[in-house]
Amino acid sequence: MALIRVITPLCSMSDEMAKDTMNEVNCLSDIQFSFDNVVLGVGPASIENSFDEAYTAPLVAIKAMEAEQDGCQAVIIDCMGDPGMHAAREAVSIPVIGPGECAMHMAATLGHQFSCVSILDSVRPIFFDHARIYGIGHKLASVRTIGVGVTELEKYGAEQINAMLLEQSLKCIQEDHADSIILGCTGFVGVAEWLQQELEKQGFAVPVINPLPTAALQAIAMIRGKIRHSKRAYKKPNLQKYEGVKFPSPDTTKR
Amino acid sequence: MALIRVITPLCSMSDEMAKDTMNEVNCLSDIQFSFDNVVLGVGPASIENSFDEAYTAPLVAIKAMEAEQDGCQAVIIDCMGDPGMHAAREAVSIPVIGPGECAMHMAATLGHQFSCVSILDSVRPIFFDHARIYGIGHKLASVRTIGVGVTELEKYGAEQINAMLLEQSLKCIQEDHADSIILGCTGFVGVAEWLQQELEKQGFAVPVINPLPTAALQAIAMIRGKIRHSKRAYKKPNLQKYEGVKFPSPDTTKR
Amino acid sequence: MALIRVITPLCSMSDEMAKDTMNEVNCLSDIQFSFDNVVLGVGPASIENSFDEAYTAPLVAIKAMEAEQDGCQAVIIDCMGDPGMHAAREAVSIPVIGPGECAMHMAATLGHQFSCVSILDSVRPIFFDHARIYGIGHKLASVRTIGVGVTELEKYGAEQINAMLLEQSLKCIQEDHADSIILGCTGFVGVAEWLQQELEKQGFAVPVINPLPTAALQAIAMIRGKIRHSKRAYKKPNLQKYEGVKFPSPDTTKR
Amino acid sequence: MALIRVITPLCSMSDEMAKDTMNEVNCLSDIQFSFDNVVLGVGPASIENSFDEAYTAPLVAIKAMEAEQDGCQAVIIDCMGDPGMHAAREAVSIPVIGPGECAMHMAATLGHQFSCVSILDSVRPIFFDHARIYGIGHKLASVRTIGVGVTELEKYGAEQINAMLLEQSLKCIQEDHADSIILGCTGFVGVAEWLQQELEKQGFAVPVINPLPTAALQAIAMIRGKIRHSKRAYKKPNLQKYEGVKFPSPDTTKR
Amino acid sequence: MALIRVITPLCSMSDEMAKDTMNEVNCLSDIQFSFDNVVLGVGPASIENSFDEAYTAPLVAIKAMEAEQDGCQAVIIDCMGDPGMHAAREAVSIPVIGPGECAMHMAATLGHQFSCVSILDSVRPIFFDHARIYGIGHKLASVRTIGVGVTELEKYGAEQINAMLLEQSLKCIQEDHADSIILGCTGFVGVAEWLQQELEKQGFAVPVINPLPTAALQAIAMIRGKIRHSKRAYKKPNLQKYEGVKFPSPDTTKR
Amino acid sequence: MALIRVITPLCSMSDEMAKDTMNEVNCLSDIQFSFDNVVLGVGPASIENSFDEAYTAPLVAIKAMEAEQDGCQAVIIDCMGDPGMHAAREAVSIPVIGPGECAMHMAATLGHQFSCVSILDSVRPIFFDHARIYGIGHKLASVRTIGVGVTELEKYGAEQINAMLLEQSLKCIQEDHADSIILGCTGFVGVAEWLQQELEKQGFAVPVINPLPTAALQAIAMIRGKIRHSKRAYKKPNLQKYEGVKFPSPDTTKR
Repeated sequence: MALIRVITPLCSMSDEMAKDTMNEVNCLSDIQFSFDNVVLGVGPASIENSFDEAYTAPLVAIKAMEAEQDGCQAVIIDCMGDPGMHAAREAVSIPVIGPGECAMHMAATLGHQFSCVSILDSVRPIFFDHARIYGIGHKLASVRTIGVGVTELEKYGAEQINAMLLEQSLKCIQEDHADSIILGCTGFVGVAEWLQQELEKQGFAVPVINPLPTAALQAIAMIRGKIRHSKRAYKKPNLQKYEGVKFPSPDTTKR
Repeated sequence: MALIRVITPLCSMSDEMAKDTMNEVNCLSDIQFSFDNVVLGVGPASIENSFDEAYTAPLVAIKAMEAEQDGCQAVIIDCMGDPGMHAAREAVSIPVIGPGECAMHMAATLGHQFSCVSILDSVRPIFFDHARIYGIGHKLASVRTIGVGVTELEKYGAEQINAMLLEQSLKCIQEDHADSIILGCTGFVGVAEWLQQELEKQGFAVPVINPLPTAALQAIAMIRGKIRHSKRAYKKPNLQKYEGVKFPSPDTTKR
Repeated sequence: MALIRVITPLCSMSDEMAKDTMNEVNCLSDIQFSFDNVVLGVGPASIENSFDEAYTAPLVAIKAMEAEQDGCQAVIIDCMGDPGMHAAREAVSIPVIGPGECAMHMAATLGHQFSCVSILDSVRPIFFDHARIYGIGHKLASVRTIGVGVTELEKYGAEQINAMLLEQSLKCIQEDHADSIILGCTGFVGVAEWLQQELEKQGFAVPVINPLPTAALQAIAMIRGKIRHSKRAYKKPNLQKYEGVKFPSPDTTKR
Repeated sequence: MALIRVITPLCSMSDEMAKDTMNEVNCLSDIQFSFDNVVLGVGPASIENSFDEAYTAPLVAIKAMEAEQDGCQAVIIDCMGDPGMHAAREAVSIPVIGPGECAMHMAATLGHQFSCVSILDSVRPIFFDHARIYGIGHKLASVRTIGVGVTELEKYGAEQINAMLLEQSLKCIQEDHADSIILGCTGFVGVAEWLQQELEKQGFAVPVINPLPTAALQAIAMIRGKIRHSKRAYKKPNLQKYEGVKFPSPDTTKR
Repeated sequence: MALIRVITPLCSMSDEMAKDTMNEVNCLSDIQFSFDNVVLGVGPASIENSFDEAYTAPLVAIKAMEAEQDGCQAVIIDCMGDPGMHAAREAVSIPVIGPGECAMHMAATLGHQFSCVSILDSVRPIFFDHARIYGIGHKLASVRTIGVGVTELEKYGAEQINAMLLEQSLKCIQEDHADSIILGCTGFVGVAEWLQQELEKQGFAVPVINPLPTAALQAIAMIRGKIRHSKRAYKKPNLQKYEGVKFPSPDTTKR
Repeated sequence: MALIRVITPLCSMSDEMAKDTMNEVNCLSDIQFSFDNVVLGVGPASIENSFDEAYTAPLVAIKAMEAEQDGCQAVIIDCMGDPGMHAAREAVSIPVIGPGECAMHMAATLGHQFSCVSILDSVRPIFFDHARIYGIGHKLASVRTIGVGVTELEKYGAEQINAMLLEQSLKCIQEDHADSIILGCTGFVGVAEWLQQELEKQGFAVPVINPLPTAALQAIAMIRGKIRHSKRAYKKPNLQKYEGVKFPSPDTTKR
């Protein structure tokens, strides 16, 4: 059985949130795969801008190196901003899945244009810049946000957040011509199915992409298909030239 | 167990070719899924240009309708030109996977730029036009071809064809900066693994995407993740307005 | 005198509609050219989505082959979706004009940006995808629709349809910065002149492109200038490899 | 009979060149149209860079105003750089055709990609910039040049120039994937037909666009179809605010 | 001390306006540089469309030649439309700065997207076309205008104009996602600072680019860094081939 | 006198290299500005891929915070990959200049297209991705590399490295149509002037942009013009939500 590690790029995560997060990937019912989860131990409580992304990126890459040494067959970065994705791909040889990249490419195949509904306006240019790098072309119609930060989600409560996400999704469909929706934050757990049904009820047959399980499906597909990232694109970095840093050692006895 | 149907958009296929084709998807070892295969019965012996694509497109869409009635949970179009993909998505509610679209989006996530190596120059503009529609942006670096039509592949023999594919792949890597390669024809069965190893031997750590199994993995992922194409994007066509045509009837007793 | 054939990609057309359609091209007053008209005999009563386009595409290509054998010097596809245009260009050596492509390139030279006003929302992504393939760049500002299908046009009556087209055209101009308008359906006969005058009256000096006569002018220009499509781009398909199909024979005695 | 004026944006033109130029448009055999020709009287002997274009642009616009007052129904700017095209469209209400714009849009409809073969490297960025403004998208594959200025063409002689143009055209086809060619200078008179035949002989069925007659066909099409440039795009300039300049007066008795 | 010449591409300028204009560049406090100012003497009282741009372009290029002969070390074209910029760069070897180009590239580095607020709608397509040529990519979010021509600015008075500019800037920020603003006319003197403060007060920390001083800073940077435009891109025009024109002579004794 | 800090994103730098680096900015002769230099103390000896960039990014951002507290009026990141640029702009209110971004925008104004000549192929996709985010459009013609890593530069010696840079620059000009060159590594100290002269000698009047002094000129221009990055684009991160991290405190007594 293959192990896939979910790296949550936050200092810590509540037990409840961790359970909800793992539920999203465990319900995929592929008995040949299992998932585990780690957090960073230090760093921010949420990822909402370039600073947070930059801070967590090297830590994610290092966690990916540990996962490879632990025998994991793929890692998933549990954040739509995909912090450290390119660095981690250079650092390891197992697949490194970013839910942002993965959800955008899935959404691109589901219809003509998609939108992201996310937390704060500060992620809007980040998503568009990522779409530019990922080669998403004209497929990203818009990014709309509910104006609530990750750490405030609980304050509002699920019901109110869901209503806000529905409101923004309807704008994406009716004003921006989106015909698919990406949930733009992996912290929106347990929302995708409800949102898709609610849109359906209002007459909009629009799939809602849940990024974390979509990333899990991509990890499974890559492992099963023996597909790996291009090491010509993501060449191994030279860690010997680093001073004052201790990286996870590849010749560890743990393996 | 879910059934996925591979629709080969040709008038017929030799038993050997059919066996080889099905081998490519059966080796994915996901025991919850099985595959079967149909051909069109009429039409061209190969797909090499817009005329061939146009001719087979409605026939593929009708085969997709039959597949849905037969209880299949997804269909795969067995051709890199994805003939009839949009029409079939409108005609049915199950996922319709085009290997061209699917391989391009997979390749886009494996590195910075990819190339396709294919049969004849006549497919080059078709692939680029499809990339434009699929939203592939800058990721498609080049399309290079071996100058041999599908029906001539046997004449040359596997060894010579493989050598030609290797030669073109090397040009894609060295001259066009591709760091991943898509095999640009589903008729290149049993080549991908060899080609990837050969490139590796020559110092190029470049993944080679095999389009049909990649499409199968996407079909599995969509079924498992309960992901469907957007019916807002691909609205049901009104078949009542057709005259002189008999479409597979949705209220058949076969279901 | 050169004969140009208008291929209407529908199963049939009322006498009145046929007369109105031919009026649009006959009033161009170039006495060196005449036009005739054929329908498909089978197929849909209207073209409103990818399925309809796919279904009619091969039939249009075959009608183009017949036209070439009948000595026509060009064919025009009487539909803004240009079904079968690329296939037909491969099948024959005479010019094959798609009003969608032709109107977009004409509109691109008339101002800075143009919009299409058309029937149903389902054509919007098709027009944008075509614009991408045709190389229209930034020139297509928007596609707006009246929400009425082709077969319902009569139900509403000309006056109401005209008012809807005017309303959408004004939005294209005022909200999307269009400075030219394309009538996005060849079924809008006898509207262009009225619409242009009405816009003028409201202070908007905006040309309204009528796609069918524009296509006729392009056909005339190409014949007169001895300009043909590139047979390097649109190579002759190999019809020998088709099974179970009878194509119009090029060595017919009709010629 | 409608009169169309060809404005050659040079200080002067030899009788022979003028005759050759007018031959290109007179052979179109549309007896309802005639052409005349004017030069600027002052200015450069050739247009080869932005300075030459800028210098002649206002003079072309003024000549267009005179043409409108003389009762011409369209003007054609006899230069692939289209100097003064936008200014002239603002200044008058009759169609103003630039052969560069017109040939690019025609070429865009003839195949998948086209190239221009022209005089000096200095026109290369100008053509690409114009393609960007004209909305030509990906259709312009390349600009290749023979390295001979307009005023030197005679020195080399037709035979040598033709051979150079053939050589560059072959490179466009074989290296840049062009399937149509635009002659990138209106000074290449009497070459297009020969070049197209020569390419055909070498196995390349590639149309060669002759820009001046293509512009003439566009002028004829626009007049016959009563199509005008958008005055919303090209608003009348306010000539009252000019000091020290005498423009052709619109209320002249000549009209 | 290096002299930089500001060329105002108008027939004339009031003393007050000239003073205000020079204030904008003189307050940069770089004591190693000084500025002077010339007008064209003939031509339009304002630049509002392609005709005005075309008319003034060659005159600006000639003024740049005079400036070079006068020993100026750079010239600045005092108009956001950058009339004659490319022609002038060909004509001289000293830096030629267009405030439109310069402000767009500065704004592109200040945030994710910028907008221009300008005078009349007729400049909108000009700014977008320039952005296309300048390579500004997705960075130009929108152009919004106050609907007041340059020569009418005085009629409304500074207070009313400022309020209009504020209103449009707010729309750029709130509706078009701009996070920087370019003042889209060099005639808006003394507004930038006020506008930036006003936006700040309303909660929008958005820089307002004042094009003329930004151009002056670019001129200073280029002189200090010994950076010149590429003479390979902007080759010297051949003035010998001009007839009936007297250009400033480079071998003047003035130098 | 304003202080500008150069942050070299390496663990350390030799005295000689530090001196050479500071020489590049000190020779700009603007007596109102002075420069100092810091290194990171930990981390890589060179920046050659995404991992190195990711590792240094947060450290650069923290050094920028320290610089702001030390009263610096701008910071420059001494690396063409601009590591941490966006994060640092969020963290501070003083200008943060990335030489990569800055050199590209300067080069974009010097001609029609520019190329970068740099160290290793691994930076090629990074530069293109950055160009996409920076909005550089079509202006970046190519990235060519000498195949020598930063830490190996010394091994080859200046003469050989210079010859390699010249060879690649010539290819950029002759094969990729570049008319300006950016030195694609801030480690190429003292090369730009020589390279520009050498190209000139060989007949190519092509400016060579030296990124670090260009960044210094931009920093000076922004300070002098009181231009700041958009805090609406680069919002202050919430450092309170970080655990296990000690950031430079803004209320330090050092200020």
